Amino acid sequence: MPTIALMTDFGIRDGNVGVMKGVIWGICPDAQIADVSHLVGPQDVREAALILARSAPYFPTGTIQLVVVDPGVGTTRRPMAAQMGDAYFVGPDNGVITLWLRQARALGQHAAFVHLDRPAFWLQTVSRVFHGRDLFAPAAAHLACGVPLSDLGSALDDPVELSFPEPHLSHDRWEGEVIYVDHFGNVASNIMAEDLGVALDRRRLIDVEIHDTRIKGMVDAFGDRDAGDLIALLGSTGNLIVSVVNGSASSKLGARLGDPVIAYVGAAMEARRQGSIK
Amino acid sequence: MPTIALMTDFGIRDGNVGVMKGVIWGICPDAQIADVSHLVGPQDVREAALILARSAPYFPTGTIQLVVVDPGVGTTRRPMAAQMGDAYFVGPDNGVITLWLRQARALGQHAAFVHLDRPAFWLQTVSRVFHGRDLFAPAAAHLACGVPLSDLGSALDDPVELSFPEPHLSHDRWEGEVIYVDHFGNVASNIMAEDLGVALDRRRLIDVEIHDTRIKGMVDAFGDRDAGDLIALLGSTGNLIVSVVNGSASSKLGARLGDPVIAYVGAAMEARRQGSIK
Amino acid sequence: MPTIALMTDFGIRDGNVGVMKGVIWGICPDAQIADVSHLVGPQDVREAALILARSAPYFPTGTIQLVVVDPGVGTTRRPMAAQMGDAYFVGPDNGVITLWLRQARALGQHAAFVHLDRPAFWLQTVSRVFHGRDLFAPAAAHLACGVPLSDLGSALDDPVELSFPEPHLSHDRWEGEVIYVDHFGNVASNIMAEDLGVALDRRRLIDVEIHDTRIKGMVDAFGDRDAGDLIALLGSTGNLIVSVVNGSASSKLGARLGDPVIAYVGAAMEARRQGSIK
Repeated sequence: MPTIALMTDFGIRDGNVGVMKGVIWGICPDAQIADVSHLVGPQDVREAALILARSAPYFPTGTIQLVVVDPGVGTTRRPMAAQMGDAYFVGPDNGVITLWLRQARALGQHAAFVHLDRPAFWLQTVSRVFHGRDLFAPAAAHLACGVPLSDLGSALDDPVELSFPEPHLSHDRWEGEVIYVDHFGNVASNIMAEDLGVALDRRRLIDVEIHDTRIKGMVDAFGDRDAGDLIALLGSTGNLIVSVVNGSASSKLGARLGDPVIAYVGAAMEARRQGSIK
Repeated sequence: MPTIALMTDFGIRDGNVGVMKGVIWGICPDAQIADVSHLVGPQDVREAALILARSAPYFPTGTIQLVVVDPGVGTTRRPMAAQMGDAYFVGPDNGVITLWLRQARALGQHAAFVHLDRPAFWLQTVSRVFHGRDLFAPAAAHLACGVPLSDLGSALDDPVELSFPEPHLSHDRWEGEVIYVDHFGNVASNIMAEDLGVALDRRRLIDVEIHDTRIKGMVDAFGDRDAGDLIALLGSTGNLIVSVVNGSASSKLGARLGDPVIAYVGAAMEARRQGSIK
Repeated sequence: MPTIALMTDFGIRDGNVGVMKGVIWGICPDAQIADVSHLVGPQDVREAALILARSAPYFPTGTIQLVVVDPGVGTTRRPMAAQMGDAYFVGPDNGVITLWLRQARALGQHAAFVHLDRPAFWLQTVSRVFHGRDLFAPAAAHLACGVPLSDLGSALDDPVELSFPEPHLSHDRWEGEVIYVDHFGNVASNIMAEDLGVALDRRRLIDVEIHDTRIKGMVDAFGDRDAGDLIALLGSTGNLIVSVVNGSASSKLGARLGDPVIAYVGAAMEARRQGSIK
């Protein structure tokens, strides 16, 4: 049973997500559909890119990630489908695939892209305002039911890629920024476990600073401190996050996207060095 | 695999939508269920009617539209099922079917209705406050798994129909009103592409007025103007809509249901006439 | 097709619910998944317990209730699976099962519990912040696809149980409190139909008091009074609830969890006694 993972910025009130499922099942009745998110910020391609990169790896082999966050609908932006390793993407060529594509490349996966330019795989009538329904859902459904990627359109090799802010190491500290605030008010930075590296062995010595507040030492789990405490830890996809135990760090700090986050790794590195001397 | 499309005003927090799915799968384990909306305004039968009419046509043949927006639950209003062409409806007989039924008639489809008056197709215990769970979900599930419509209840031929505001042509302008505001803040009027007719060939000459603001000319797609611009265009189901590019027309205009919307078609008609003279 | 009913406090924006479905289908491709709620209040185990107890009985035999409201994730709280009668539970051992377990015991159902302590049934890498994805979803998926409960972990016989406020009878009245406010603003008390018992035969004589407002007599259905009227009736799971017809009792009364609710049953009992004398 082919799986389609569906992400949009459509919200869940107007019926448009349901309409896409109807279209999919009209073409590929056995497709299994999971909603990933329909509350991506309106037209927020970057937010969708972040959610896609952290959710796609958990879906079964062959899953089609159907992502419709599409401010350019009906203009010259290209509708696209892609294969990366054993996974598929269908959606606008607007950079939403950027972070997922980086992961694929880091894993050495082969990537192929097509411009969805063959109307045989669309609905008969295509509006200029709802390609999710008229073009992307049909294309994903045909792909789910066995049409080869290369049949859906002409090959392309220059998908749009966006730039995302990168953290950088400065002396004894990693300087990053807030890139996401989740439902619980957890504040996620772009500093990753891989950045912190071996310093994580002594994470209780890594202080984290945000909004002039310095959090002394990282913890391992939300429940390692008392309710209401501000903590720093690794989130579920390896980002350094700032949280309030059983509360909202976002509300407490008033944190916004782009706000600086600093991880002081000097003490942890020094302790590790001395530890290895002993 | 029979498909059930589910719409309610239950919200998504209390578990009642999940309960309906549990009941359906207990009766018809293979039913495939799509959520259309559960955020219809509480008791807002008219809003549900609009969403139903624009979403139902995109579902596969044989789909059962199960709609539970039901302020009269437990009173004398009749529970109903219907067939229109190859599609089915299950829900209260309160007019929610009105606009979809008009479409079916316009397509010359046969319509049949039954009063769901046979307890054999309900749960054993039926509350007077949750027919979605106790009566409509079971009836839809039996229908999905092959029980003929006519077995579910006695025929009826007078389903409740509501009146909806209609736009009208006055000299050189169509006068309509706001009938829906969507998740993005797009403001939809009841003026349809069919009303504008051939004037649409010269749509750049059709001005649209709302709240004393006159938008010069219609466009084809959201991306045809700059971010922040107020635009008028055809929405995905043919309604004349007013939008802000990458923004919310609703927030910008403070538009509410019932506010007047005017489309000036005189210049487009004149240009078309002159064009055809040449 | 095994059914999994999914409840979390994750919200629906961040993609984490979708990720859990991806994990489930990677292990058990045919699992049928229903969302029960993902808007449980953050870390609100009691609210989840209430929703679980009233929704679980409506799912098919063999359904696995997968509930991840888990403030203790990554600490010493035990991950758990359980069987009660023909139904299953997977989630943290934090008392969320309490009310459902009481129902099972009242029905004389056998209950068995295991500590999910066998990593063979988890993802290979288990974070300390997202057991929903890394541990509970995989365990539920294995259970759905035929792994016996007893294989998933060591037996345990002391699941955490929480205490919930109980109503009590005082002379001629039941004194309870507000335990839930739903999407419509209906205010549910912990006074149950079973508590009111035979007094319900004369329910029009049962007055209900909340916030110094005395509602004269209970009704049977929302539509039994005019729009805007404050009414008292039995909700869909037998709780005494206070509502506003086509409105929100919560908004009107400003009711909060824990506020007192009183049902005066004296007059109904007296009328019943006199009636039976005649």
